[in-house]
Amino acid sequence: MSSSYGKNIKVTIFGQSHSKAIGMTLEGIPGGKKIDLEKLYAFLSRRAPGKNAFSTPRKEADIPEFLSGMVGDITCGTPITAAIMNTNTRSQDYDILKDIPRPGHADYTGYIKYGENRDYTGGGHFSGRLTAPLCIAGGIALQLLEESGIKIYAHIASIGSIKDDADFLKTVQDNTSFSMERKDFPTVSDESGRKMMEFIAEKKAEGDSVGGIVECVILGVPAGIGDPMFDGVENRIAQAVFGIPAVKGIEFGNGFEAAWLTGSENNDAFCVKDGKIVTETNNCGGILGGISDGMPIVFRAAFKPTPSIAKEQKSVRLDTMEETTLVVPGRHDPCIVPRAVPVVEAVAAIALYDMLND
Amino acid sequence: MSSSYGKNIKVTIFGQSHSKAIGMTLEGIPGGKKIDLEKLYAFLSRRAPGKNAFSTPRKEADIPEFLSGMVGDITCGTPITAAIMNTNTRSQDYDILKDIPRPGHADYTGYIKYGENRDYTGGGHFSGRLTAPLCIAGGIALQLLEESGIKIYAHIASIGSIKDDADFLKTVQDNTSFSMERKDFPTVSDESGRKMMEFIAEKKAEGDSVGGIVECVILGVPAGIGDPMFDGVENRIAQAVFGIPAVKGIEFGNGFEAAWLTGSENNDAFCVKDGKIVTETNNCGGILGGISDGMPIVFRAAFKPTPSIAKEQKSVRLDTMEETTLVVPGRHDPCIVPRAVPVVEAVAAIALYDMLND
Amino acid sequence: MSSSYGKNIKVTIFGQSHSKAIGMTLEGIPGGKKIDLEKLYAFLSRRAPGKNAFSTPRKEADIPEFLSGMVGDITCGTPITAAIMNTNTRSQDYDILKDIPRPGHADYTGYIKYGENRDYTGGGHFSGRLTAPLCIAGGIALQLLEESGIKIYAHIASIGSIKDDADFLKTVQDNTSFSMERKDFPTVSDESGRKMMEFIAEKKAEGDSVGGIVECVILGVPAGIGDPMFDGVENRIAQAVFGIPAVKGIEFGNGFEAAWLTGSENNDAFCVKDGKIVTETNNCGGILGGISDGMPIVFRAAFKPTPSIAKEQKSVRLDTMEETTLVVPGRHDPCIVPRAVPVVEAVAAIALYDMLND
Amino acid sequence: MSSSYGKNIKVTIFGQSHSKAIGMTLEGIPGGKKIDLEKLYAFLSRRAPGKNAFSTPRKEADIPEFLSGMVGDITCGTPITAAIMNTNTRSQDYDILKDIPRPGHADYTGYIKYGENRDYTGGGHFSGRLTAPLCIAGGIALQLLEESGIKIYAHIASIGSIKDDADFLKTVQDNTSFSMERKDFPTVSDESGRKMMEFIAEKKAEGDSVGGIVECVILGVPAGIGDPMFDGVENRIAQAVFGIPAVKGIEFGNGFEAAWLTGSENNDAFCVKDGKIVTETNNCGGILGGISDGMPIVFRAAFKPTPSIAKEQKSVRLDTMEETTLVVPGRHDPCIVPRAVPVVEAVAAIALYDMLND
Repeated sequence: MSSSYGKNIKVTIFGQSHSKAIGMTLEGIPGGKKIDLEKLYAFLSRRAPGKNAFSTPRKEADIPEFLSGMVGDITCGTPITAAIMNTNTRSQDYDILKDIPRPGHADYTGYIKYGENRDYTGGGHFSGRLTAPLCIAGGIALQLLEESGIKIYAHIASIGSIKDDADFLKTVQDNTSFSMERKDFPTVSDESGRKMMEFIAEKKAEGDSVGGIVECVILGVPAGIGDPMFDGVENRIAQAVFGIPAVKGIEFGNGFEAAWLTGSENNDAFCVKDGKIVTETNNCGGILGGISDGMPIVFRAAFKPTPSIAKEQKSVRLDTMEETTLVVPGRHDPCIVPRAVPVVEAVAAIALYDMLND
Repeated sequence: MSSSYGKNIKVTIFGQSHSKAIGMTLEGIPGGKKIDLEKLYAFLSRRAPGKNAFSTPRKEADIPEFLSGMVGDITCGTPITAAIMNTNTRSQDYDILKDIPRPGHADYTGYIKYGENRDYTGGGHFSGRLTAPLCIAGGIALQLLEESGIKIYAHIASIGSIKDDADFLKTVQDNTSFSMERKDFPTVSDESGRKMMEFIAEKKAEGDSVGGIVECVILGVPAGIGDPMFDGVENRIAQAVFGIPAVKGIEFGNGFEAAWLTGSENNDAFCVKDGKIVTETNNCGGILGGISDGMPIVFRAAFKPTPSIAKEQKSVRLDTMEETTLVVPGRHDPCIVPRAVPVVEAVAAIALYDMLND
Repeated sequence: MSSSYGKNIKVTIFGQSHSKAIGMTLEGIPGGKKIDLEKLYAFLSRRAPGKNAFSTPRKEADIPEFLSGMVGDITCGTPITAAIMNTNTRSQDYDILKDIPRPGHADYTGYIKYGENRDYTGGGHFSGRLTAPLCIAGGIALQLLEESGIKIYAHIASIGSIKDDADFLKTVQDNTSFSMERKDFPTVSDESGRKMMEFIAEKKAEGDSVGGIVECVILGVPAGIGDPMFDGVENRIAQAVFGIPAVKGIEFGNGFEAAWLTGSENNDAFCVKDGKIVTETNNCGGILGGISDGMPIVFRAAFKPTPSIAKEQKSVRLDTMEETTLVVPGRHDPCIVPRAVPVVEAVAAIALYDMLND
Repeated sequence: MSSSYGKNIKVTIFGQSHSKAIGMTLEGIPGGKKIDLEKLYAFLSRRAPGKNAFSTPRKEADIPEFLSGMVGDITCGTPITAAIMNTNTRSQDYDILKDIPRPGHADYTGYIKYGENRDYTGGGHFSGRLTAPLCIAGGIALQLLEESGIKIYAHIASIGSIKDDADFLKTVQDNTSFSMERKDFPTVSDESGRKMMEFIAEKKAEGDSVGGIVECVILGVPAGIGDPMFDGVENRIAQAVFGIPAVKGIEFGNGFEAAWLTGSENNDAFCVKDGKIVTETNNCGGILGGISDGMPIVFRAAFKPTPSIAKEQKSVRLDTMEETTLVVPGRHDPCIVPRAVPVVEAVAAIALYDMLND
């Protein structure tokens, strides 16, 4: 199993790219919470495809239907299930993929795991489309966290070698109502965003795809959240973030850079500010010994380039074991990173809300 | 809670640096398995302190005593508990740490979480010493995995900017009986190791510490292990590896580098070799969609520099909230990375064995 | 949380009596399993209301719609979600229950737990109607268990003081294709069933309700299933069976009667039959030390009488804290035991299938 | 696995009857809790053998040694491990049991599950002796519950057909400091206790054993504890109580008797007392819809007679598959019910404390 997450809340994601519906069940949310549905839909629309030239041109309304757990827009305390009906699916695009797995994609491992009867169309349960229900759960968690004064922000830190030319932490600390909602492309610097879009367009024209890094900042987390060893903030955020397709790495605070530093460079000195103990720097990303220290939690997730590319690739026929070549049919994002930004916020929110309820 | 890991087996780690004992309980191991205790002790000795000039000079026998679950050297199927009695502890070294938390360490977050009655001596439950019982569990898992043809290897990939000048994957693939056991310093290249030791010695002389990166390769994992979404190979290894103190990042396959590549560069073409489907490259680190593809699993973990350094640092008195300075007393590794190498193998083994039994 | 069950499979039940839908998600079922949908619907119809004069006269098609996890009638390995759309609900019947909790029902505890915004209509998530999705999951598990040679049977052992005049274990052992499917009333003895129906009719005429006992037999369970202590067969079946509304007791084998016996009376002597070790008697209900011994598993669950009765009862207004009286509106089974019989089979199947996959 | 219990706390029980030690790890207890060790030892002594003529004559100090998690008598927030060293074991008594399983005992199922290398001596991990560490965890939980105003009481409700001639609920409600600690035999009525002891002595003289029923009352539980469906108060207490060896049934409130009653007889009318909503009767045992209603929680557990009896019994040799007879060697309680009374309190405390922390 795998499609459930959480100890104090439990999110279960169901559906395949082309099944009747995709959706989620969210258990453990208290009764009486008002969910701002417009705000939730606005959040979901940040992930939706077709937003700009670089995301897949499919039109998906992706409006969730709440099957249970809500009376109107108020939670009733028992499991919340929301489903998004699948429409506008073009399964025939995928016929060739039944026998020829796409390099870099889960087609092959899905075949090994689930056998011939797996749902290979559209990537099945492995499809990036399954991040839509993840965003429903995460969008609800984000609203509940805000009640506790916790806010989560993410941006594209880089696409290829192009960096978002901004101090993201400072940006959101200076303007806690910062939101990517009104942006077409989720960078702080519009100039950097423009360059990234050009780079993506260029690679798309070549029939290729690109990866990138999403950075996430969480403000307002009180000190003392998380546990040592296996249930620390890092462990639990990592377990959630690797639930997003295409993530291949995660780091907290200085992360891999910390391996290059000395203790005197990397340690965060304690000091007192406004009567509270804080750290002068935040190289640890707000986490010491797995437990939040009250400073902003900062992490970055590395996304590999979209495996579905238009270029011809080498593969193997599963039915005959013959080597062959494949040109992946269908419509695919040349870069899923822009759409992944709200998904990172969503899973961070789920992980945080779960930890807050330890 | 936090000190338990696993779905199909369960490892529970107990103890504080200076409690009567530290230890582990390992549930879910079948009866009738012969454990080679000499081999287990040899594995534990790789983690033990005092091995060279750069690890802490404390002498710890660290021979585990099996309290339950074994009849002689054979598992009996019910929970295995092993304890290591704590001796040679110098708690008075830590008196100053009751009120002044070490920058970069869990002293402060432990205080916030557990209050005045926390066991602050020696880092309490946050101490690196707790990786000893982790290695008991991992050492047992390693032996059981070998029965299934799975072997786990790790080395220091880098200390500061000094890299181990070797292709680690090729090294262990060419010589599957490769072991760090007979090495004083766990690098493939002795020359690189010597440089790393010099660098550590230099920083130690400055009263400072350094971090590094451990790379781990797992051979023999069949395709089809792990689950999509939250229980994938990446999620579960990450959850385990962040259980090692000082880890701040993890990446699989190309990891963060994948974010710089295009799909055509990063995708691993499928081909047929010896009648089996394999990939020409292994940029995905043996994992597609969270599921093993039968190729070697490769990951790297970033370790921050040891926070306990001899240099004077700024901190705050917890009792009076006054800013102060601190010179950390006691004996501390200037670099824990060499001793962390078997610990990475251990947690990888625990995670793998757990997944194999899904 | 609460609406999830299982370690190796996971069943999550969602919905309220009058929400848009009720349903279930079932994780952990392998791909490639053909589900006989007709057989599943036939099983569900055994639980459906309106089957005879003694069940509630509401008409519910209760045909599940598979939203995910199936391609046609074949499982694809990823989470199976099925929903039953709610129609024919008469919420206005329940207006009075917003402020006046029904004695013996979860109205009051739901109010305490979830607050004013709970979904009180139709009992919300506590409604017996939620056993419909439980039967979807259980019906699938029953089919999968049959593949392994495991069959589950239940009957009404008693209603009030009227017993089913039959040796149930012998009945199903002699005829393993025994099924309640073609019966209007799930007793072995039609004469006993007739008497029970008369008794229920009599109590219904008085505006009252009755309880009863359901007995369940599981054939074909191999020896060695279950674990000692907290994950034994008894613990896990008990945890599942108390998930059925109205269950107030469970016993295995001789159960409470064992408390009256001596060891020499209650112990089951071992003997050899057809080259296999079996027991001469089965007083332990097929379970020793929490682990199956290869004999039939036998348990009984006690159901309290339906709390919703037509007689006037004393209650308290939640809004004013005034004592008052209540005549429960709406349509209610005078005895839910007949419809509970397949539900007991369903939860036993879920628990067994989960254990088989340990 | 099986030897762990809990969602918010986690108790892990380890050890075999004759392993070096038996013990428990208790995770999730906050730091800074003072444990009254004398009180804990007094609680443990209620379970200890050799207290009267009817318990096994072995002398066991059974004083737990705290290996971790405590600084003196104060919890430090991280896992508490306590071990009881095994001494005075007479393993040779058990040689015959290697090949000939005792009827009614887990010898046979342990052999099936763990194979030839199981630890059969003294019942291994299935031994009633493992209830000692359960009582350490439970004794700690009892002290923590008392801080929240929750008290747990149990007594022998019956041995064979002899009942404790007392209204137990009223007894403890009238005297909330009631304790079995100063009693040799845990009944309210000394006269009933005397008769039970005579009956046990009589059966012991015949080389036989007897079972009984333990009743448990929990006072002070606030309304709103527990969850619907699978994590209700009944489910979770049942899962814990079936962890005690020899338990074959459990019932809450009227339990099995409720199956004989009508709704109007069994429903508990709501009324107002001292400004609070209470029920006039408590037939539901303080639980509606799986959730506590604020009334006393009442349950009863049925214990089968000790399987190890002196009478000759039929069994089968595991090595040759020949039918044979067995006279069980060693010292065994003719009735474990008196010693089980504190164990029932212990597991109820563990389950309650876990639920309180939902």
